[in-house]
Amino acid sequence: MLQENERVDYLPGSPLQIIQSPEIFNFSLDAVLLARFAYLPIQKGRILDLCTGSGAVPLLVSERTKGHITAVDIQPILADMTKRSVALNHLADQIDVIEGNLKDMPSRFGHGIFDIVTCNPPYFPVPEVLHRNERDTLAIARHEIECTLEDVVQSSSQLLRAGGKFAMVHRPERLVSILDTMQRYRLAPKRMQLVYPRANKDANTLLIEGTKDGKPGLTILPPLFIYGEGNAYTEEAHRQIYGE
Amino acid sequence: MLQENERVDYLPGSPLQIIQSPEIFNFSLDAVLLARFAYLPIQKGRILDLCTGSGAVPLLVSERTKGHITAVDIQPILADMTKRSVALNHLADQIDVIEGNLKDMPSRFGHGIFDIVTCNPPYFPVPEVLHRNERDTLAIARHEIECTLEDVVQSSSQLLRAGGKFAMVHRPERLVSILDTMQRYRLAPKRMQLVYPRANKDANTLLIEGTKDGKPGLTILPPLFIYGEGNAYTEEAHRQIYGE
Repeated sequence: MLQENERVDYLPGSPLQIIQSPEIFNFSLDAVLLARFAYLPIQKGRILDLCTGSGAVPLLVSERTKGHITAVDIQPILADMTKRSVALNHLADQIDVIEGNLKDMPSRFGHGIFDIVTCNPPYFPVPEVLHRNERDTLAIARHEIECTLEDVVQSSSQLLRAGGKFAMVHRPERLVSILDTMQRYRLAPKRMQLVYPRANKDANTLLIEGTKDGKPGLTILPPLFIYGEGNAYTEEAHRQIYGE
Repeated sequence: MLQENERVDYLPGSPLQIIQSPEIFNFSLDAVLLARFAYLPIQKGRILDLCTGSGAVPLLVSERTKGHITAVDIQPILADMTKRSVALNHLADQIDVIEGNLKDMPSRFGHGIFDIVTCNPPYFPVPEVLHRNERDTLAIARHEIECTLEDVVQSSSQLLRAGGKFAMVHRPERLVSILDTMQRYRLAPKRMQLVYPRANKDANTLLIEGTKDGKPGLTILPPLFIYGEGNAYTEEAHRQIYGE
């Protein structure tokens, strides 16, 4: 089941296993935080995870809901890795994995049919000096080469039903564009949490949730500090990363 | 010098005194936080405080800069109180107080002439049920009766030079409109701090600074918690409220 250079890791706070390839792509803390942050229906519903990477978000989400999950990634190597992780955890009934471009999903699935869309997208604009041969798997996962913030928000909005929720993890320096883009595509920002590496540092991660055609009014949740003294997680980070 | 029902208080962390009228309007913690948060040139510059109320912001700002300060309030009773507080502190050379509508200031002063604009505006949309006779001094200071968020941002942008800075305190639930309005009036959001009553509560105050015609890119500063155990200020709140 494993390809060369792959290994199996546990997802934090979960009995689930995930296939990783340190040379290609590892799931990040951001994926874990997103999976814990997103509102999810418990008993049923259709959930979509875009830019799924190696599948950490859909795997963790499956622990919090009985709803059906669709996970999409544009990169064949990552979609394949996610498929094998889903099989490894006997979750093929709950999680579908699709190799494809998120921009094609509204025509594939139709508009307004998902209850929840989650996304941990590429964070960084494409650097001018990024040459063709540097567009490897990791670069595509990290930079807006194949999809921009606007692509993510537009497709998510099309795919969500009215009242459905969009949850995303991103970088705080992009907050202005994020709120602007969400508004333009009718995703009213409703809930935001800022994540700080330590109590005295600037925020380095942003969790945000919006409601399709929702009313205005944003709640900013208590901040999350990842590290306390030394390199130990704070109590709250430990709780949020490993679940309650 | 004092009118009926007025009293003199000290501003926190400062030898300055401020005339207050508990029945009409008291300065708030938000004004103090704004005065400490705003970037200020130390030696010179033209600084404008809009919606000055009883003048807490210009008084505290005067301690951090030798620049000239203009303070504006639309309410005669508050502009008069501020004038008397300025005189009480022998600051008439540094602080001018103007009774007037902020929307008239660009034509009065001209465009692009201030280095810094600060504002602690009314936070709340006008409730539909607010009757004429409830439009008292406090209501005008708290609700967008005489000036809206857009009025504040538009006038501030006109009054600021390119590269000048706009600093405002507001409510987090208005963040989406605040960023949107700042952007529309060419004030690039650059620095934001969220204030939480306690570590485990949602944010209830927002400090934001933007640069006229600045480059995009927002930094989210470490959060500020006001209260720690019981009703004592946290160390950081004490430092920010009383100065260093």
